[in-house]
Amino acid sequence: MDRIPILRMGAILLVTIQVEMHDQTALQLQDDLASRIVDTGASGVLIDISALTMVDSFIGRMLIGISGISRLLDAQTVVVGIQPAVAITLVELGLSLDGVRTALNVERGMQILQAADKGRPIGR
Amino acid sequence: MDRIPILRMGAILLVTIQVEMHDQTALQLQDDLASRIVDTGASGVLIDISALTMVDSFIGRMLIGISGISRLLDAQTVVVGIQPAVAITLVELGLSLDGVRTALNVERGMQILQAADKGRPIGR
Repeated sequence: MDRIPILRMGAILLVTIQVEMHDQTALQLQDDLASRIVDTGASGVLIDISALTMVDSFIGRMLIGISGISRLLDAQTVVVGIQPAVAITLVELGLSLDGVRTALNVERGMQILQAADKGRPIGR
Repeated sequence: MDRIPILRMGAILLVTIQVEMHDQTALQLQDDLASRIVDTGASGVLIDISALTMVDSFIGRMLIGISGISRLLDAQTVVVGIQPAVAITLVELGLSLDGVRTALNVERGMQILQAADKGRPIGR
């Protein structure tokens, strides 16, 4: 089964979604991410979907799900690299990703998460 | 087919809607705006509808749609110049534009968007 790699960059976990995901891969990613956040004490999760040219409601709901899980584990999620057509589709599907922070690219997403991390108490 | 021009003013994209829109024109505007936000890294979209003396539910939903798409692309939308009669009609249609920021005129809308832009991380 495919497994989406999770890269650690300091206090931030980076996930780059490069292929259309099957349901099982997406569920595995949620599990993996949750474990990694707890193991590393990460303060932020950056999900780059710039390689996705289309999304469906399943992917949309997964992004909302990951964001919710991360929040419960005290990590902020930022989704970056949303293509114009993908944004339009998500809104048409009624999935405007309420509560999910977005940024244009990885660089800006990192800045948001690093700024948030600086405001945290030390000692994880 | 008519195409509504999108003007760039620094980090803000300005759209002035001057004619009653056909469905196709509105969809084209959504597409164009989404692409321009990504291309320019704009932080704000200002939609001036002061020339519209009447609206229907289609226009109302389009404004909500544009606002949602922009948010996903990390840009804030402000709708300005809503005429009193238009405001009344929108509410009567049940479209109170929840989640869409409004301002009285272009000047005030720009102030809101510029203030929001200053709070952002640098580097686009």
